[in-house]
Amino acid sequence: MNEETRNLKMVLGYEGTRYAGFQRQATGILTIQGELEEALSRLTNETITIHAAGRTDAGVHARGQVVNFHTQSQMPCSKLQQALNSLLPTDILIQKVAEVPLVFHARYSVQHKTYSYRLVHGGLRPLFKRNFVYYYRHELKVELMQQAAELLVGTQDFATFQAAGSMVKTTIRTINFCKLVAEEAELLLTINANGFLYHMVRNIVGTLILVGSQRLSITDFKAALAKKDRSSAGPTAPAAGLCLEAVYYKKME
Amino acid sequence: MNEETRNLKMVLGYEGTRYAGFQRQATGILTIQGELEEALSRLTNETITIHAAGRTDAGVHARGQVVNFHTQSQMPCSKLQQALNSLLPTDILIQKVAEVPLVFHARYSVQHKTYSYRLVHGGLRPLFKRNFVYYYRHELKVELMQQAAELLVGTQDFATFQAAGSMVKTTIRTINFCKLVAEEAELLLTINANGFLYHMVRNIVGTLILVGSQRLSITDFKAALAKKDRSSAGPTAPAAGLCLEAVYYKKME
Repeated sequence: MNEETRNLKMVLGYEGTRYAGFQRQATGILTIQGELEEALSRLTNETITIHAAGRTDAGVHARGQVVNFHTQSQMPCSKLQQALNSLLPTDILIQKVAEVPLVFHARYSVQHKTYSYRLVHGGLRPLFKRNFVYYYRHELKVELMQQAAELLVGTQDFATFQAAGSMVKTTIRTINFCKLVAEEAELLLTINANGFLYHMVRNIVGTLILVGSQRLSITDFKAALAKKDRSSAGPTAPAAGLCLEAVYYKKME
Repeated sequence: MNEETRNLKMVLGYEGTRYAGFQRQATGILTIQGELEEALSRLTNETITIHAAGRTDAGVHARGQVVNFHTQSQMPCSKLQQALNSLLPTDILIQKVAEVPLVFHARYSVQHKTYSYRLVHGGLRPLFKRNFVYYYRHELKVELMQQAAELLVGTQDFATFQAAGSMVKTTIRTINFCKLVAEEAELLLTINANGFLYHMVRNIVGTLILVGSQRLSITDFKAALAKKDRSSAGPTAPAAGLCLEAVYYKKME
């Protein structure tokens, strides 16, 4: 790296519906990373590799994904943002570009992240929000789900909610808040944590649905969490309801 | 028609993005009417023809479109609704089905209708709402547009806002209300009238944008309306911002 290298941080949103996920895959497979790197490489005449705070799965959305990349380009941040937003497909939007210290890494520097999950229960299937919510045909007992959600707050071993076969050093994470809010037939779960295991939010939602449909009591929900075993939790809720809302970093001097 | 014929009224919503418009066209062209008639014909084993309150154009949406059709089928309304919603694509949703008197006609019985038009002005292009708003890159003077919108209320000749080449008996219509509301960068125009000329709302919006960008004064807007001539109005605003919100009928005994 020569001394002109800049480290740029971008905040972006996207609708994940059309994409095979964030992470770049083989040529011909549509990914957010692929689209971003292609546009950036065109604009800078360099081969750009980006790092993302969270590599969201196929169909998962973002309102506040964060990425960073190194470049020799001296293009002003606002101009880069404008040029990128012209080049990118309309379902990806760069909300902010800023130069940051070279040590900043969108994934390793994360302090905590917020995910949301949207669910419509009972009534007719959703129309305009159909790609952004999971439609659950039956009515759910929201109060029970809210009680269960509260139990997840704190520093705990969340192995129960980790996708089977995951390999991580530790399954202990700190959930800072986990709130379920109901607005008519729409439920919005917001979870902030210092880290998320693979499929953690979707497995939590799948298990909360068991609670809301009274197939799992609050006592059994507690027991399932304590068991640290994926098979004691509910199914993985669909991707469409999930959205990476925001990523938080330590203020860098 | 034998004495078992029923007249069914349906209220429905749809996202118009994928469709060539409401009205059925040649085989192979995707239309709302085509999808509805195909699903209804399959369910009833009859050849069903539907009539709609408003035949929305390509890309135009509906939250409260109304249609009616005659059928010999004795299937209960709630069952028909459920079956239709299973058969139809996810961007069309039947919200209500009810049996009505045989004389009811979704178009000829209309008393008044409400359309909305959504506009984002200035700032970044919209992401999640991109198919439901028109993005106008520059900031608009909202107060001027609101003043102009007010001038449209009443029984007037709206020939200025009718698409060139339209053939109708009269271009006089009554606008009951025409309100422009701003919520941050998003503008929402809501118009209720006893009838709409072809492209009337989109031509009104195109002209209001001229006012908001100070290329047309309020005085000139008044003069344009008085001129009854399409060429004195602004361009036709894009379809995506338009939505048929509701249709109102006289209560039938």
